Amino acid sequence: MAVRAAVAGASGYAGGEVLRLLLAHPEVEIGALTGNSNAGQRLGGLQPHLWPLADRVLGETTADALAGHDVVFLALPHGQSAAVAEQLGPDVLVIDMGADFRLADAADWERFYGSPHAGTWPYGLPELPGARAALTGAKRIAVPGCYPTAATLALFPAYAARLAEPEAVIVAASGTSGAGKAPKPHLLGSEVMGSMSPYGVGGGHRHTPEMIQNLGAVAGERITVSFTPTLAPMPRGILATCSAKAAPGVSAESLRAAYEKAYADEPFVHLLPPGQWPATGAVHGSNAVQVQVAHDEAAGRIIAISAIDNLTKGTAGGAVQSMNLALGLDETTGLSTIGVAP
Amino acid sequence: MAVRAAVAGASGYAGGEVLRLLLAHPEVEIGALTGNSNAGQRLGGLQPHLWPLADRVLGETTADALAGHDVVFLALPHGQSAAVAEQLGPDVLVIDMGADFRLADAADWERFYGSPHAGTWPYGLPELPGARAALTGAKRIAVPGCYPTAATLALFPAYAARLAEPEAVIVAASGTSGAGKAPKPHLLGSEVMGSMSPYGVGGGHRHTPEMIQNLGAVAGERITVSFTPTLAPMPRGILATCSAKAAPGVSAESLRAAYEKAYADEPFVHLLPPGQWPATGAVHGSNAVQVQVAHDEAAGRIIAISAIDNLTKGTAGGAVQSMNLALGLDETTGLSTIGVAP
Amino acid sequence: MAVRAAVAGASGYAGGEVLRLLLAHPEVEIGALTGNSNAGQRLGGLQPHLWPLADRVLGETTADALAGHDVVFLALPHGQSAAVAEQLGPDVLVIDMGADFRLADAADWERFYGSPHAGTWPYGLPELPGARAALTGAKRIAVPGCYPTAATLALFPAYAARLAEPEAVIVAASGTSGAGKAPKPHLLGSEVMGSMSPYGVGGGHRHTPEMIQNLGAVAGERITVSFTPTLAPMPRGILATCSAKAAPGVSAESLRAAYEKAYADEPFVHLLPPGQWPATGAVHGSNAVQVQVAHDEAAGRIIAISAIDNLTKGTAGGAVQSMNLALGLDETTGLSTIGVAP
Amino acid sequence: MAVRAAVAGASGYAGGEVLRLLLAHPEVEIGALTGNSNAGQRLGGLQPHLWPLADRVLGETTADALAGHDVVFLALPHGQSAAVAEQLGPDVLVIDMGADFRLADAADWERFYGSPHAGTWPYGLPELPGARAALTGAKRIAVPGCYPTAATLALFPAYAARLAEPEAVIVAASGTSGAGKAPKPHLLGSEVMGSMSPYGVGGGHRHTPEMIQNLGAVAGERITVSFTPTLAPMPRGILATCSAKAAPGVSAESLRAAYEKAYADEPFVHLLPPGQWPATGAVHGSNAVQVQVAHDEAAGRIIAISAIDNLTKGTAGGAVQSMNLALGLDETTGLSTIGVAP
Repeated sequence: MAVRAAVAGASGYAGGEVLRLLLAHPEVEIGALTGNSNAGQRLGGLQPHLWPLADRVLGETTADALAGHDVVFLALPHGQSAAVAEQLGPDVLVIDMGADFRLADAADWERFYGSPHAGTWPYGLPELPGARAALTGAKRIAVPGCYPTAATLALFPAYAARLAEPEAVIVAASGTSGAGKAPKPHLLGSEVMGSMSPYGVGGGHRHTPEMIQNLGAVAGERITVSFTPTLAPMPRGILATCSAKAAPGVSAESLRAAYEKAYADEPFVHLLPPGQWPATGAVHGSNAVQVQVAHDEAAGRIIAISAIDNLTKGTAGGAVQSMNLALGLDETTGLSTIGVAP
Repeated sequence: MAVRAAVAGASGYAGGEVLRLLLAHPEVEIGALTGNSNAGQRLGGLQPHLWPLADRVLGETTADALAGHDVVFLALPHGQSAAVAEQLGPDVLVIDMGADFRLADAADWERFYGSPHAGTWPYGLPELPGARAALTGAKRIAVPGCYPTAATLALFPAYAARLAEPEAVIVAASGTSGAGKAPKPHLLGSEVMGSMSPYGVGGGHRHTPEMIQNLGAVAGERITVSFTPTLAPMPRGILATCSAKAAPGVSAESLRAAYEKAYADEPFVHLLPPGQWPATGAVHGSNAVQVQVAHDEAAGRIIAISAIDNLTKGTAGGAVQSMNLALGLDETTGLSTIGVAP
Repeated sequence: MAVRAAVAGASGYAGGEVLRLLLAHPEVEIGALTGNSNAGQRLGGLQPHLWPLADRVLGETTADALAGHDVVFLALPHGQSAAVAEQLGPDVLVIDMGADFRLADAADWERFYGSPHAGTWPYGLPELPGARAALTGAKRIAVPGCYPTAATLALFPAYAARLAEPEAVIVAASGTSGAGKAPKPHLLGSEVMGSMSPYGVGGGHRHTPEMIQNLGAVAGERITVSFTPTLAPMPRGILATCSAKAAPGVSAESLRAAYEKAYADEPFVHLLPPGQWPATGAVHGSNAVQVQVAHDEAAGRIIAISAIDNLTKGTAGGAVQSMNLALGLDETTGLSTIGVAP
Repeated sequence: MAVRAAVAGASGYAGGEVLRLLLAHPEVEIGALTGNSNAGQRLGGLQPHLWPLADRVLGETTADALAGHDVVFLALPHGQSAAVAEQLGPDVLVIDMGADFRLADAADWERFYGSPHAGTWPYGLPELPGARAALTGAKRIAVPGCYPTAATLALFPAYAARLAEPEAVIVAASGTSGAGKAPKPHLLGSEVMGSMSPYGVGGGHRHTPEMIQNLGAVAGERITVSFTPTLAPMPRGILATCSAKAAPGVSAESLRAAYEKAYADEPFVHLLPPGQWPATGAVHGSNAVQVQVAHDEAAGRIIAISAIDNLTKGTAGGAVQSMNLALGLDETTGLSTIGVAP
């Protein structure tokens, strides 16, 4: 019997991506699609790449519209998920692709988002130690942010093996879809093509506390993160270049062993062979993660780099992977590790 | 029982794309992979997006290496397919993604390619009138060129309905993967990003006689084609802008009716609703074709525009679609109509 | 004594480009800068590439603000130029980079713009036969549209020499800056990168009557134009692929001779040597025009192709070139023929 | 009397860029142009954007061809400059845009380049403390690498003011022209568009010792640099994201003051107003440098970011700026601070 899934926020990039993946998922039947300002419009005009759904018309995002489904994906502006989730009842699997339920620390939430904390849901990054158990059978899931997904997967094996000092420096380049579909002057094609630029510099980006939370939990100590996101002239992809001082005694071999151990059985994380480095183009449209790590002896640092597709593994693919776990399906059902390249 | 498929030329763009599609094909098992200068190398270093095949090593392209498969895909430089095909025996399905067997007219071949004509195989464009019958059960298939695929699907319904004069003007923009993976200065990223440029202007492009052949067969008369290809700053996609003088009595309604008739039952061709125009981004990585047509009364012309992914529907997707027909499988098996966008 | 120039609409792409050129013009001193919704803001935040003007603050676009200058450049939405120009007095040189005064035929204007015709000013395309005389000493100048600039310069020599039949087919690819800086969803970087798409298909684009006007005047007869604009994934540049049936007796030699005659003394038009084709990258940021022409004997057509930078020769460079003529300066003052490539 | 300049290596990107700038330089007359594999070819086919030089034919790179000029720019593969320079005589100004004479430490050279050290020439980064004096009247100049230019200008004011600990972490994104014009598969447009990827990770990039040399000299102590270069999908530009632990007592105010002091009188360095961040698009084609700095209190680090055009300020613009100083001209002659945007 098919799993019936609804998507709230179906006209945006996260909503469109989750629909692209659900259309290829053998166990899912797509139910209600809702929007906000786009309610009443055909999906064919809003998401012309989703041909099989072209004639679907978006409804309003209301509890009534979303009722009667097994799974509801929320792709809403932050602050709106709690009210919707409450009305859906405890037996519906609610997967929030927004930020509302990612942080455990209410003070962190309030400092970075300026509103009351809605709560904390099981965190949809199955590769993190302990996460799979919490996701199996869960009815509420908070999908990680795209940058925290990339940075955590690049660095956590080093922290898990106590090979890195607790001060991480993360510089990540993101494709423009990470900034969403609401039109703003600095996101125009004319502005972004041929240009790289940083934003949220100096600790202000809202994904910073999420990285600290993830890496600190693995490290077992408080860590600091200096995070600088940059906007790159490409539609999709995150390349996260992460480093930290090497702990005493680290060698290239111990580092490699730590990553091999962490990722030996992970279906979506591809620890590249020595000498090959991640490229976002290679994971375009897939749920794969490319990871590589090096030891810079002269500088005394480890450098770990990951590449993901921000919309797939960084958002909608991570959501579907977590849904599979929650529903007791094989974790890889409907998800691909094959990029669309070149 | 799985169909065993070999790919000759697995390190190039066409070979990589056919492997991407075959990995998702439920009836196919991937057998031998061969290359030329890259024989002996791991596929993981050559096609890093094809993770499940990363540890495969390319063999030499020899009859021995390709023997023992049900299907052999040839992605070879033109002029090399005939010799390979001969050695494979008549019971093996040989699908040539190169040009060698596309043209029926030996004189055309010799004028455009400067070498003896190898022959003519069933033409792998199932949407063309009569093509499906020739492909069903076929053991040899010539996959159309990417530009002829786009241009033929844009224009043939108008010629089939006698709505266009026999002088077509076709201007097409192609992504750079159409030019292949052999490194040449004018294909460097530095050269193509931010620039549009034409090539093969004035009738010299080798895809011109193939367009004339396709459209002339449908029109039932000799037609001329003025074809100008241009190189666009994107990795994939063809946008074909095609026009011809309107035949006497053409109206917007008769035009629409002709296209609706031609494409009513086609699983991969999406005739867009009036007012919506094709975009290559919407078919990225999919086997879908977007088509739209208009009547410019003031200029007395019909304008038909199509968008395809040059590597998918324009090459490897068309090859797999034809393979499905030849093998008696459902034509859409393993192929998607959903683009990877944005 | 310096020419004092004001720019109305200084925060948009046309306004920014004219400022970039005026900053390098040895005879011009930049006076008032005005905006609309951006009045009161520093230019440094709006046009960060114009460093020498970073601390200038935009005023409101009023007659008072623009008074007291020798030249006023108008980069306004169409329909607003006439009212401003009237208040500036007959001795001020007013250069309209918008559409209001380009068309001679009031009925054409009303059909394409849906508002009363404001009038007709000398047309700022000096390369057109007769245009220089009308521009010398002029006090009002209508800068051509970007597409008409590219298409006219590609085709008019063929019409002037009676080598082309009066039915032109023009397909042009434009960089996204041609669509302006007002944020709209389809102009987001995420949407345009990796995608080509047409718009205004079937004769609806407002630049069509301007092309008909220019080419018809040279041809000495009524011509039709089938014009299809497409949006290309690059910030700047227009590649115009233009063709028409060859007149009886046309040869490659007669065609070449016609273009050599037309462009022998033109400082900005570069008729490329035989075999070399235009590329928008080669004229990026310059006032140069690359042109090439071919005779397709099999199709019986001539194909003429031009490349310009839509913001420079297609808008602001054409404006400055015309200003130079109007003021009696050397036509090339302050303008470059050297592209910023790669 | 004009300065006569020759360019060896005129067909590559560095050579093309220095010619673009010299064409706009009022005191320079362009003399001999030489190439290697391209000798005998017209420049118009190799550098189609340099129209005024289109009919120049490249000579062989020999001492004879380069003799008789006041200035010789060398854009040669590393290891070839010393032999050429020796034959040119001590009175000719020789400006090496390659790496041969940048490093003071012979052991560093040998470790990173694997060949004997040719020597050390005055270092062409006028903004570095003490550099202008060494460049004034110089007859030999080593132009800095593009990454060291960006990173040094981002960080040195912090080191000069003792505000940063001696362990710098630098992640830089570069446009593809930095990798040169020799065609290699990973530099194809198809590969780079839509993809970000790192290279030379872990301390292996040859620009690392140059950064250590520059920053260490300013800091007055030995520093380490962890440098990760990444390839970005754009033709030009470097965005350097640089950080270091803040020294005790650092505040946002002390940091701002240090940068204001360092750059108060620099004609090419634009310290942006607080809140505005560099973008490579804003300096495209110009010699300008955009710099901004922040204090991340939570992470205890300073973050300094710069944007340059790798071919202009990062190579050929830095070369012309240094030439101006060496010849006693105004340092800004022929150089622009205005980017070509969008």
